[in-house]
Amino acid sequence: MTDVRKLGTDSAHDPQLLIKQLIHTPVVNAPDQEIVYRDLHRYSYRELYGRICRLANVLVSLGVKAGDTVAVMDWDSNRYLECFFAVPMIGAVLHTINVRLSPEQILYTIDHAEDDVLLVNGEFLPILEQIRGRIDTVRQYILLNDEPTVPETHLDFTGEYEALLAAADATFDFPDFDENSRATTFYTTGTTGMPKGVFFSHRQLVLHTLGVIATLGTSVSQGRFHREDVYMPITPMFHVHAWGLPYVATTMGVKQVYPGRYMPDHLLELIAREKVTFSHCVPTILHMLLKSPYSAKVDLSQWKVIIGGASMSKALCLDALKRGIDLFTGYGMSETCPILTFSQLLPEMIADGPEAQAEIRCKTGMPLALVDLRIVDAEMNDVPRDGKSSGEIVVRTPWLTQGYLKDHRTSEKLWEGGWLHTCDVANIDAKGYVKITDRTKDVIKIGGEWVSSLELEDILAHHPAVSEVAVIGLPDERWGERPLALVVVKPDIKEKVTEKTLQHHVHEYADKGMISKQVVLLKVRFVEMIDKTSVGKVSKVTLREKYLPKQA
Amino acid sequence: MTDVRKLGTDSAHDPQLLIKQLIHTPVVNAPDQEIVYRDLHRYSYRELYGRICRLANVLVSLGVKAGDTVAVMDWDSNRYLECFFAVPMIGAVLHTINVRLSPEQILYTIDHAEDDVLLVNGEFLPILEQIRGRIDTVRQYILLNDEPTVPETHLDFTGEYEALLAAADATFDFPDFDENSRATTFYTTGTTGMPKGVFFSHRQLVLHTLGVIATLGTSVSQGRFHREDVYMPITPMFHVHAWGLPYVATTMGVKQVYPGRYMPDHLLELIAREKVTFSHCVPTILHMLLKSPYSAKVDLSQWKVIIGGASMSKALCLDALKRGIDLFTGYGMSETCPILTFSQLLPEMIADGPEAQAEIRCKTGMPLALVDLRIVDAEMNDVPRDGKSSGEIVVRTPWLTQGYLKDHRTSEKLWEGGWLHTCDVANIDAKGYVKITDRTKDVIKIGGEWVSSLELEDILAHHPAVSEVAVIGLPDERWGERPLALVVVKPDIKEKVTEKTLQHHVHEYADKGMISKQVVLLKVRFVEMIDKTSVGKVSKVTLREKYLPKQA
Repeated sequence: MTDVRKLGTDSAHDPQLLIKQLIHTPVVNAPDQEIVYRDLHRYSYRELYGRICRLANVLVSLGVKAGDTVAVMDWDSNRYLECFFAVPMIGAVLHTINVRLSPEQILYTIDHAEDDVLLVNGEFLPILEQIRGRIDTVRQYILLNDEPTVPETHLDFTGEYEALLAAADATFDFPDFDENSRATTFYTTGTTGMPKGVFFSHRQLVLHTLGVIATLGTSVSQGRFHREDVYMPITPMFHVHAWGLPYVATTMGVKQVYPGRYMPDHLLELIAREKVTFSHCVPTILHMLLKSPYSAKVDLSQWKVIIGGASMSKALCLDALKRGIDLFTGYGMSETCPILTFSQLLPEMIADGPEAQAEIRCKTGMPLALVDLRIVDAEMNDVPRDGKSSGEIVVRTPWLTQGYLKDHRTSEKLWEGGWLHTCDVANIDAKGYVKITDRTKDVIKIGGEWVSSLELEDILAHHPAVSEVAVIGLPDERWGERPLALVVVKPDIKEKVTEKTLQHHVHEYADKGMISKQVVLLKVRFVEMIDKTSVGKVSKVTLREKYLPKQA
Repeated sequence: MTDVRKLGTDSAHDPQLLIKQLIHTPVVNAPDQEIVYRDLHRYSYRELYGRICRLANVLVSLGVKAGDTVAVMDWDSNRYLECFFAVPMIGAVLHTINVRLSPEQILYTIDHAEDDVLLVNGEFLPILEQIRGRIDTVRQYILLNDEPTVPETHLDFTGEYEALLAAADATFDFPDFDENSRATTFYTTGTTGMPKGVFFSHRQLVLHTLGVIATLGTSVSQGRFHREDVYMPITPMFHVHAWGLPYVATTMGVKQVYPGRYMPDHLLELIAREKVTFSHCVPTILHMLLKSPYSAKVDLSQWKVIIGGASMSKALCLDALKRGIDLFTGYGMSETCPILTFSQLLPEMIADGPEAQAEIRCKTGMPLALVDLRIVDAEMNDVPRDGKSSGEIVVRTPWLTQGYLKDHRTSEKLWEGGWLHTCDVANIDAKGYVKITDRTKDVIKIGGEWVSSLELEDILAHHPAVSEVAVIGLPDERWGERPLALVVVKPDIKEKVTEKTLQHHVHEYADKGMISKQVVLLKVRFVEMIDKTSVGKVSKVTLREKYLPKQA
């Protein structure tokens, strides 16, 4: 009786979802497909699998056990791809070190993640030399070297990667274990404080891979990733596993090209030579590539690109479309593995002109298979699908970080009410396209209504006298908040600009229904300059600290 | 310390893999997409979801609890699709009754699965009337009625499906529960004994869906299932959930057409009217459709079809290709959820002529993502990828049945050594295409070598005197087995055919290397007729019983 009715089945023969399952089928189905690293390596999937086995044998021989952490400091390389598989496949955790952090921050993450073994590209030795005496956990270093000579160093290397692999056995019997085992970890860079550790399990990475393929593969024509594509990442492998796309590309068995460091002409050369058709990058990189004089010589009309990491401007999108590039937005964050949505065109949009297409391609997009994405108000009610009403994006899907490493308090806040809170403010239109308008931190809540500081900035920037502008929320007893615009006036503008001029300018937009009427509460303050972070972003945190009255 | 190193993560926020997750995204992304049932129903995904909620409310109001079993007897319909989702989504088990079984067998499966509620199409009432007094477990019956009048019956119906749905609430808060909960069950029909119960969990069905999409979606052009396709099943929904394709189609958010009973001209009409582009069927059905005079009026050149259930003949494949149909083999069995492989063309084959293409399209194919498929000899060693060496197909993948319902002994045999044994004998070529040549039962093991009885039958059938032939293994002390051909000679053949004539014919093939030299051991017995099963298949079981010496 209980046999048939009980919930739960005997899952003795139900394999756990492990990263090793992703590599199995492509090695069987596409053994001769290529992996390319710059001008230095070119080999088949068959050999890739052999090298993964060799690396596993090397690590085990160095004493790496299940649950240990293996860290990597490298540019995008075939070695990194091998680590993506071999390290978690032996049950260890892969720590992908963000090489753009300061040496002090890198030391912090090595310590915090408790790295046992560190694989380091010779180019980053100067960083390690600086912190060498203070690294407590690392027992062994492996050198990743692309140069003909061995670099001078005080570090005591166990060996060089290629030499170690060559000496190791090319077969390995990868173990089975709990699919919830941690597979990878890396650190997000906030605007304040030390980086926070994010981590993902085997199960999460397998499901993210399948969710991405289910969406990228089944679109009709534009933005489709298929088995004849040639893949090259242009977002770093240390950052959320290059958006998880190397796992996707390997599972699909496509040709893969790893470019090393991102130098525009070198990237363009690889695209041309290897016939790269599928990439992903931040808007800045795409801009750089299109502006390079060399790009005029390269046919980019077969290139599909996911744009993410920052919102894509319509101007950049139109530039790229003119070159024949099939580009679209992907959205997510470090905490979400990362991909949640893609902004692929619907079939009826393919005949649209570039202006209309750019409108869609720059949106945030639609959720992938298995992604339960909602846009909710403060009471967790879904906002209407009218393309106007704003709310916060909250998500549930089986590939979200469970919280930050050793940081329970922040973790709880991230997961308030059982939904992951993205802090992104968005609307959703009748067709289902989500569009992010703000970070929750950038929204000004005036009398219960959410007004986008970015939209307000955009409107103010359209005034001919305004050179730079940033809008923050000014605490207000009656309204909760009211907008405060910090404005730098153009030096060559004769016209005397007053607060009233700009208020009037904004009211005109409100009168036309282009922004909430609440903006009549705008205050303006003229400043000499607007403070930015070290990477050139406007720091609203700093602006709030500087211009807002201190709270008691 | 233990925090970072421990295996296993706190998966508090990792949603379980439940069937409800498959329906969420399409309802958000493609709310206006259509579901069509014959000429009777046409509604949107938005309404589909509302109807799933209504059905859930109906079932709960009838007292259906998690772990209860809800059975369905219906042709392919929108109602069935709604049951595919609503029943497991409330935590109950869906029993899809095979309406082609005898009433006694149906009674056996209802009893064995312990069905609590039974939804039955009026057309099947005569079956239920026959066994009515002997159904012990069913508490309530729901009528599925496509006719204008209510059928006469002795059964005490709780209500009619559409009326019950109309009276129910269109929202439902579907619960979370263990992903290993049983979601579906159905019964396989063997050649001997009572049907055996097979069952699948939520997790298995979700992963099967993703694995199928990852493979069907990413192929280059031929045999690709994409979001603009229009889907219609032509293998019954009671049989392995119509190969799981309704779950696939729903997850992708495509238009779906449900044809009811399979009448060739009605199917062709639906294909033409609804612009159906994606289906799956057994060779017999495809043959029937192509032979229907009405088919000449229907444009089938946009139609993609997965062929499974039996091997496709090259002749049928060529006929279909001539009509512009893009068809290819899918392989699996009830115990495997069912799909394991697809025989899609590689890009370099698309320019090939129909003969060469048919060769590939009729093969068994390549494993899907996550399918670990091996072809092994008796010692579990992989056979070489030479397109010749034979072995048994064994598999591991996260969507295999855990064994038969309440039948532990058979379950153990199925899972010998931790691999699911398919009993299919196959080879694999250098490109990775698997080709089934036999069932293990049909292979003749001569002196340690596996010889295909089907290949031998094929060779014998080429002799002009042979009308029908079946080959079985004759136990032999020295060789283990030797082949015995049972031959029916054509009545109009004058020539005197002897055992020697046919032995000589076979030897010629062996001399050319087209079959093992071991066939020199062939014995021939001339018979009047070859015994077949009720569905017209040659029953080797019966032949062995009839013609082989009884074992002590």
